[in-house]
Amino acid sequence: MTKKGAGEQELRTRLRLPPGEPVDLSAHDTRATPGDPGGKDAALAQTGRMGRRLAALQDRLWAASTAGDRRRVLLVLQGMDTSGKGGTVKHVAGLLNPAGCRVRAFRAPTAEERAHDFLWRVRRALPRPGEIGIFDRSHYEDVLVARVRHLAVPAEIGSRYGRINDFERSLADDGVTVVKCFLHLSAQEQRRRLLRRLDRPDKRWKFDPGDIEDRALWPAYQEAYATVLERCAGPHAPWYLVPADRKWYRNWAVCRLLLEHLRDLDPRYPEADFDVAACRERLTRHT
Amino acid sequence: MTKKGAGEQELRTRLRLPPGEPVDLSAHDTRATPGDPGGKDAALAQTGRMGRRLAALQDRLWAASTAGDRRRVLLVLQGMDTSGKGGTVKHVAGLLNPAGCRVRAFRAPTAEERAHDFLWRVRRALPRPGEIGIFDRSHYEDVLVARVRHLAVPAEIGSRYGRINDFERSLADDGVTVVKCFLHLSAQEQRRRLLRRLDRPDKRWKFDPGDIEDRALWPAYQEAYATVLERCAGPHAPWYLVPADRKWYRNWAVCRLLLEHLRDLDPRYPEADFDVAACRERLTRHT
Repeated sequence: MTKKGAGEQELRTRLRLPPGEPVDLSAHDTRATPGDPGGKDAALAQTGRMGRRLAALQDRLWAASTAGDRRRVLLVLQGMDTSGKGGTVKHVAGLLNPAGCRVRAFRAPTAEERAHDFLWRVRRALPRPGEIGIFDRSHYEDVLVARVRHLAVPAEIGSRYGRINDFERSLADDGVTVVKCFLHLSAQEQRRRLLRRLDRPDKRWKFDPGDIEDRALWPAYQEAYATVLERCAGPHAPWYLVPADRKWYRNWAVCRLLLEHLRDLDPRYPEADFDVAACRERLTRHT
Repeated sequence: MTKKGAGEQELRTRLRLPPGEPVDLSAHDTRATPGDPGGKDAALAQTGRMGRRLAALQDRLWAASTAGDRRRVLLVLQGMDTSGKGGTVKHVAGLLNPAGCRVRAFRAPTAEERAHDFLWRVRRALPRPGEIGIFDRSHYEDVLVARVRHLAVPAEIGSRYGRINDFERSLADDGVTVVKCFLHLSAQEQRRRLLRRLDRPDKRWKFDPGDIEDRALWPAYQEAYATVLERCAGPHAPWYLVPADRKWYRNWAVCRLLLEHLRDLDPRYPEADFDVAACRERLTRHT
């Protein structure tokens, strides 16, 4: 991706939620495919091609880090159960060199994690310079499930939005490009996916009867998400709303968002800080 | 891989170094391709097919862990500079679901790591139940470079072999299948690869002039490896000698070794511990 065509900027612009504005999730079509290259087959083919560009840029990012470049990327995936966070990790991270990719899934906090501030476990899982980190769920759970299920008192929850913004600003200052994707799923599609999990013995283990109870809390979750999308969307860490009912679109879009950000970073292979000709000579002469 | 054919057991048997026996590395051809399916093209095609089997077994391993199965796999890669540890990670881990794969490259220890026992940083990087861990270098560096470059006193180095064996036995007891691969490269092939790094601007960053000095220590490294391969090869954690001059063979062989071990574990999807029909009914009835 050497040239920036007008069309190539488009997805980021199209999916970015304007910071500070109220978000009405019901106004966003979960089956939409904004910016897609012309349907499923075209998107699948383009995702493959983007994968090679991603891997090439990742290699440069890693190489640059060996010469002191502290930049890195953190992809944050949030969304309701079955919205495809795990599937996105599998597809997007599968396009990268696993050695430079730090994947972390956040589940209910352990006793040790609960003994610390909610950002503690997140800080420990951050990508190192040169890496691409992927979070399947994140610190946002602490203002989503924590709010809906009353896992903390309201004043504590209320304080977290600002602390998240401060945290993400500090990440930006430290060279971390944060790409936050909300995978927007419909309740109907979730039901279809939950039923599919029940029907397939090799998927059934992913099913938790608690998921059914969570569906009764769907409106509360949508409201909690809308609050997050409005309050935690600084210019240094905007939210992208990715319609997620169609898996091929979701994978294509997240891939493209990642590619657009990496391309902007434009990492470079470091120059040799040693005498290349002399090294070649020494290697050729001996043994 | 549902049936165990005689041929399928073969690679593990062929590459395993007999425990406790002196190892003469010069007697092992670095360009050999024991057990290969008939040359490069056949190996590449088979590696792709094995990748799908690996991913399917990995999915089962992970699923089983959600029901309390503590088993996991740790692939340890050791070998001289340019022997292809990084390339193997890229190719083998690239076949797996990145979410269940924990890759760790060990470099020279940091100040914090040096303040602890040499196994401290290794314990922290172990795969969790259900995961496949890959180490690019490992605790073996502490009896390899540490020995050759005299980074610790001889008595300390001497004590480490036994401590490594105890450690690996404790891993086995805790459900960790350790698969240790020594990527066996010739000095000639290393020279070719180092020259290639010098010649390509996108590879030059990997070059370290110190690598040339290390070549003068080649015999000392080979001796240190021979000692490791002889002394740290219990039945619970044998060493596999993988000829590594040919990259396609190296990838194929490591892939196959991993597959043979995962197949033996035979992880199973857990049975549902809830009423599937009732859940289906609740999901279909509401919303």
